[in-house]
Amino acid sequence: MGKGEQTRQEIIRKAAPIFNQRGYDGAALSDLMKATGLEKGGIYRHFESKQQLAAEAFDYAWQETLGARIHDLDAVLNTVDRLKRLVANFVERRGAIPGGCPLLNTAVDTDDGNSVLRLRARKALHGLRSYIVLVIHAGIKAQEIRPSIDAKKLASLIISSLEGAIMLCRLERSDEALRAVETHLDSYFEREVRLPAK
Amino acid sequence: MGKGEQTRQEIIRKAAPIFNQRGYDGAALSDLMKATGLEKGGIYRHFESKQQLAAEAFDYAWQETLGARIHDLDAVLNTVDRLKRLVANFVERRGAIPGGCPLLNTAVDTDDGNSVLRLRARKALHGLRSYIVLVIHAGIKAQEIRPSIDAKKLASLIISSLEGAIMLCRLERSDEALRAVETHLDSYFEREVRLPAK
Repeated sequence: MGKGEQTRQEIIRKAAPIFNQRGYDGAALSDLMKATGLEKGGIYRHFESKQQLAAEAFDYAWQETLGARIHDLDAVLNTVDRLKRLVANFVERRGAIPGGCPLLNTAVDTDDGNSVLRLRARKALHGLRSYIVLVIHAGIKAQEIRPSIDAKKLASLIISSLEGAIMLCRLERSDEALRAVETHLDSYFEREVRLPAK
Repeated sequence: MGKGEQTRQEIIRKAAPIFNQRGYDGAALSDLMKATGLEKGGIYRHFESKQQLAAEAFDYAWQETLGARIHDLDAVLNTVDRLKRLVANFVERRGAIPGGCPLLNTAVDTDDGNSVLRLRARKALHGLRSYIVLVIHAGIKAQEIRPSIDAKKLASLIISSLEGAIMLCRLERSDEALRAVETHLDSYFEREVRLPAK
């Protein structure tokens, strides 16, 4: 990696918490300069626009967040237990990037505009949902998950309830809502999703 | 109501969609002037600051949104059916104020700062949760809801999953996630919340 590319990556890494905490409009050039230690020209030599920097900062923040949520899932052999670990990771492995979940933040921040960032958030959502759908399909095939389960609906339910609970928890500075969702989903997985052994 | 107070209410009513769609930092004075048809001085004669206007616009937007969600609930006599109606209202009665749910938007927008708006969002969340807790307690008392149900946890679950689903739906321009959550909660209410008649 050349020196220019190293600087570029460093700017993305340092800009990511700014955009994640303050939103696109709230992230001022002065904040970005302070975080990176660079002048305006030093930042925008590497990016076409604020939007391009925000988009790459989002992708970086999302990779870190998704990584924290799924990094250890392959080690869990049973697919229902893998879903439970995913839920536990959502609850316990927050804060990969300061400011909360980049998907929630960017989706809410851009749902009435900023189509570039909005598309990145959609892609992130689709990636996470596809991952969960694959786990569920593997579970149905392995006769661990009931064949009647609609994989996409269950994936949407899991993501909706956890992302909504992140909003409540950040607003209240408490993890009660995430714990309530985790308890509910775990119990639901056992009662309605797991295919009983024959 | 005097003419000054009428103008003040009109400004709040017209500013609410701007703040709800664009967020606090994204709501420019030019947007507010355009929406109200007033000059800067005409707006700020009635408000101490942008933050004060945003706070009153949030309260107005939240009252409209909460009203749409709970306006017909008193007519539903059975408390479990009342919870189901509340969930259905979340799904069907969106868009009281353009820009999606003011609670979700303002919570995410202010969770890393803007303590005035953040307190308004917390108060809104607590009001909604208290309302649901009261319904559940009434249901337990009336022997319609199982006494083992933890009212606050169930209320947090309902709010988390619906608010998260609103995020997904707005990002995807589809109501699939809200429908998935509604189906799940309805089924959960019947199987695990409703106290079977003796």
